[in-house]
Order: sequence, then structure tokens, then C-alpha cells
Amino acid sequence: MTALKNDRFLRALLKQPVDVTPVWMMRQAGRYLPEYRATRAKAGDFVSLMKNPELACEVTLQPLDRYPQIDAAILFSDILTIPDAMGQGLYFETGEGPRFRKIIRSLADIEALPIPDPEQDLGYVMDAVRTIRRELNGRVPLIGFSGSPWTLATYMVEGGSSKDFRQSKAMLYSDPQAMHALLGKLADSVTAYLNGQIRAGAQAVQIFDSWGGSLSAAAYQEFSLAYMQKIVNGLIREHEGRRVPVILFTKGGGLWLESMAETGAEALGLDWTCDIGQARARVGDKVALQGNMDPSVLYATPAAIRTEVARILKAYGAGSGHVFNLGHGITPQVDPAHAAAFFEAVHELSAPYHA
Amino acid sequence: MTALKNDRFLRALLKQPVDVTPVWMMRQAGRYLPEYRATRAKAGDFVSLMKNPELACEVTLQPLDRYPQIDAAILFSDILTIPDAMGQGLYFETGEGPRFRKIIRSLADIEALPIPDPEQDLGYVMDAVRTIRRELNGRVPLIGFSGSPWTLATYMVEGGSSKDFRQSKAMLYSDPQAMHALLGKLADSVTAYLNGQIRAGAQAVQIFDSWGGSLSAAAYQEFSLAYMQKIVNGLIREHEGRRVPVILFTKGGGLWLESMAETGAEALGLDWTCDIGQARARVGDKVALQGNMDPSVLYATPAAIRTEVARILKAYGAGSGHVFNLGHGITPQVDPAHAAAFFEAVHELSAPYHA
Repeated sequence: MTALKNDRFLRALLKQPVDVTPVWMMRQAGRYLPEYRATRAKAGDFVSLMKNPELACEVTLQPLDRYPQIDAAILFSDILTIPDAMGQGLYFETGEGPRFRKIIRSLADIEALPIPDPEQDLGYVMDAVRTIRRELNGRVPLIGFSGSPWTLATYMVEGGSSKDFRQSKAMLYSDPQAMHALLGKLADSVTAYLNGQIRAGAQAVQIFDSWGGSLSAAAYQEFSLAYMQKIVNGLIREHEGRRVPVILFTKGGGLWLESMAETGAEALGLDWTCDIGQARARVGDKVALQGNMDPSVLYATPAAIRTEVARILKAYGAGSGHVFNLGHGITPQVDPAHAAAFFEAVHELSAPYHA
Repeated sequence: MTALKNDRFLRALLKQPVDVTPVWMMRQAGRYLPEYRATRAKAGDFVSLMKNPELACEVTLQPLDRYPQIDAAILFSDILTIPDAMGQGLYFETGEGPRFRKIIRSLADIEALPIPDPEQDLGYVMDAVRTIRRELNGRVPLIGFSGSPWTLATYMVEGGSSKDFRQSKAMLYSDPQAMHALLGKLADSVTAYLNGQIRAGAQAVQIFDSWGGSLSAAAYQEFSLAYMQKIVNGLIREHEGRRVPVILFTKGGGLWLESMAETGAEALGLDWTCDIGQARARVGDKVALQGNMDPSVLYATPAAIRTEVARILKAYGAGSGHVFNLGHGITPQVDPAHAAAFFEAVHELSAPYHA
């Protein structure tokens, strides 16, 4: 494999010294970019784009070509590839978000679910990882990812997005055994899937627990964090002679950082409701932190974006262990020039904190 | 005024001894009740129902008649009465939530806004409070309420509900002076409005900061909590010879309880992501706590609801200072029999904690 030309991102995740704070952006390959919209139009729809390794590679690299400051690429894919590979039939309805043709409602449904084999059943993702890794040619590291078991379970039980998780929480509280059976199967599937991505070339992995923050503190521990712990325990932690860092990101999980930091993950993703300085004090040296600017700040002026980047850098303070990011994905309406202001500000303003 | 027959709710807010943990439910007068749907159909639409003091009284009392355990009534109204009285023109589109005919976009728009006089401009609310108080005839205390300045500002600037608060956060970050001008005006309006409700008969007041949890920790302090502090400072705190407790409820505010407890409010509302035992340890004796069952637990079986009520009572532990509630409003799809299981469980299972 080609040597890595920029390893700032991996070094910060391991709290090793860096020259400036590394930066990337959740959903950096996305609809706010005209070049992304052009590729997506070429592909036809989102699922076709995601399942085409060449086009997935193309959109993964687009933000890197536009913004030279970006310190990591992230696989272009969707969190719902696993339920799709389990046979649920993922599709997207315009303006409706993801939907599944089959819905999980009973223990019998759960017992019938297969555990997908990454190369056999999710080959398009593994091929995308290999293609992107080859095309990156060592520019920056490649991040692989998956949805968390709880997050995947909500979509599988609801049949799509949800406001109040009516069916999935009814199952969690009325039939916890069924929910545990589903989550156990998902944890095994996610472990195999992320290990497949690591073998194919992913140099760090992130677990997106988008809906863990919808749970009570007690239910979070039992139904989300316990299964992320199981995944962390089963992941390949060294590959190609390097540590493969794991980032856990529970949106709305700011109250639970201490227990997340105990999992053995290298880093925690923070949404913007956490003060990153307080978060650092709470987790101590156990983990690095990734985040955490409110994505809606990108609707403000470039000067205001710069001020907010400066505030967050100051809140984190001196030393390594911070990967700058948004606290959630960039939204489609953002002006790409505002994203540029964000990336530039992180590198320009962070140097003094690493002197 | 008639003597209060059941003052458990007010006593718990002041951490005075009680026999059982008092209980009420956010949105207890709402669409899950067939009798509510009948009254609403009679009124025509939501705004007509809310602006009719007799019908507002009727729906306020409905849950009390159905569930004898309920320890407090809450004024039936909407959080958006103030912007409506400021001339923004509130209406509801089916399935779309609240909308405003006029939208605030500039400092000039803000400077032109009047501060509503409660009796002159919001007389229908004051009349509803007087009517409900008379009809309650001392059964339980009556809670008045308002939206928080930040929450009202988001609707006024967006023109309705929002996913990412694009316009309001752009104003907050790009033109903080304009946002502060708007919030200052709203804080004055909310103070006058809640004092009007107290004079009309509200025996406690709750400030609903529904969208404070959408802010960064720093922005929350400056743009939401500071204005709730201003309101707390300006409220009538004694009326009819009794303390009028104030409850602050920031949904998603679990990380900020310590600073909320410093405002001088008697109680904090908790959503379900906080462990109530940990919250109690964090705020100490400064405030009582209200909450915090996940409303989606009401989709589970009555047995599961009872188990979750027991878990929360145990987490809070012995002694007064807890008002049981959901962590957010009850949803329209809940079976009224499940709400009954909730109310019954709180009184039945809490007695040992007050022995």
C-alpha cells in the first residue's frame, strides 16, 4: 500500500502530536456540492449511486478536490446497507427519506434474518472501499462506517424514519427479548461489516448511533451502548501495521460520554450541545473527541463561521486529541463557499494550539 | 378564593412533604382523548378552540374527570399566543403544524413589534385562566405557561416549525444584536403574560423551552437561558398568600441543569434522556425535578409502563421534590387506557418513598 502523505487525522485520534487540528465534515460528499448533484443525476437515484463503486468513489473524492484542507475521506454509502443486505429492500421516496419493503415486527421475523457476509452480500461497499483507497493514493486516510445496532433496528422495525419510534420502543419495552435478539444479530452483522471494510482498506471506522439519543439513559445503556461495546470488542484493531481507530458517535449522547469512553473506542463524536472543553475534562485521557460545530452555523456569514470555529478550538484548548468536525451532517442548502470558510478557519486558527 | 383540596403538586415543587408523588402529564388535554377530539370538532379548529375560554376550560378539565389521580391542571392553550398577539397571524395547516402570516427577518421588523398587554391583547387566555380556576373549584392547582423567548423567536423568524432553524440560527450568528433585540422584547412580553396569568389565577407557571436544546452549550446560555433568567426575575412570586413556583423546561437541556438551577426557578423539567437520580445529585437542594418518562413508553403494555414508572421512582429515591410527568407531551396515538396505567402506577408505587 502507498504510504500515507497526511496522517494528521489518525494521529489526533491517537492523541499523538499534530501541526494543526485535523478536519473533515460529516456528509462532506453531499447535496450541497453541485458536482455531487451532477454525479447523482448521472446515477439516477441515491441507491444506484451508493451501489456503484466507481461513482461512490467519485463523490467521495469531490470534497477533497474542492477543499485542500480536508484531512480524511469518508466512504460514500448509507447507514442502511446492512438491513438492505438482510433482505428488507431499501428504497427512497422523494422527500420521505429511507423506506423498507419488509418490516420487522416479531421474534419470528428476527430469527429469519441472515447475517450478511460482507464480500458476498455487501460486495459493492467493499469494492467502493478498495476503489476509493486506490484512488486516494495516500492523500488522506479513509474512514469506513456503519449505523449502530439500535439505529438500524429503529428503521427495520418502523419501516423507515420515525418521529417517536412508536413500534421500536413498543418492542423495546413490551418485548425486550425480541429487541435484544434483533440487536445481537445486528451487532454481529456490523462487526463483520466493519471488519470487511477494514480488510478492504478503511483506516478508521465510525459507528453512527443517530438515534441512541432518543432513548432514556437506562435504555441507552442496555439497548444501544451495550451493542456498540460488543462491536468494539470484535473489531480488527491493527491493520497494515497501524492502529485502526474507532469513533463512537451518539447524536444527543452528551450526558453519557463517561460510559462511552469506557468502551475502548479511541474517540467520541460530539454533537454541538456539548461544550467540548467540559467534555474533554469529563473523559480525560481516555478518548479523543471529534466535533462539534452546529451545522446551522454554516448558514451564517463566513466571518461568523470563523468566530465559532475559534470559540470551539479555544474551548478544546491546547494539545492533540481533537478532530474538528460538525456536530452532525452538513445540510443541502449550505453555500459551498461557507464550507470553505469552515475548513480554512480550522487549519489557520488551530496552529497556535499545537505550537 | 376556594381553598385548595389537593396541594401535593405545589408542595412537591417546594420540596415539602407529600403522601405520594404528584403526577400530571404534558399535553394531558389532547388528541389521545376522544372527548377532546369531540370538543375540538365542535370548535372547528385548534385556534378557535384555544381562543374560546369556555371550550378551553372544558378540555382542560377532561383529563381530570377521566383520571382521578391527576394532581394538577394545565391551562389549555398554545405556546404561540404571544407572537400571534404581536400581529404575526398564527394559523395551522393540516399536518404542517403552526404557521405565521408575517415573518420576522430584520431589526426593523423587530423594532416594530408591540409588547402585548395580557388583558387587552390576550384577554381570551386570561379569561380561560379565570374560567378554569373557577370551574376547578379548588380540586387541584392550575398551571399557567408560556413558550420561552428563544422558542418563540424560532417560530417568528422561521415562519413556523423548523428542522434546522436555518433562518433563526443565521440571525443568531450573523446578526446577534437583532436576535438579542427580539429576545429582549419577548422576555418582557412573556413576563407580562405570565404575571397576567398569575393574577388571573394560575398557581404555578411553566416555561416551555422546546427548542433550547437545539443550541450549542454557549449559545444556550446567551440566547435562551439568559432570557428565561430575566423572566424569572420579573415574575410575581407570591400570590393569594402562596408561593407561585416556576418550572423551567428545556427539552434536550440535560447537560445544562446546573446553570438552570441557578436561575431561582423552583423546579426543572427533565426530558427522558437524563437519569433523574443523577440529575437530583447534580442540582442538590436547589430545585425540584419534574419528569421524566419517555412518552413512547405509553405505546408499550400497561405492565411495561408500570415497570418504567417504578424504575424512575426508584431512581429519584426517597423524599419530596419530584413531580412525576412524561419527558415531553403525550402523543395522539396513545391508548387512553395506557395513560390510566401511568397515572395509577405513580400514586400506587410512590407511597413507600414518602413513608
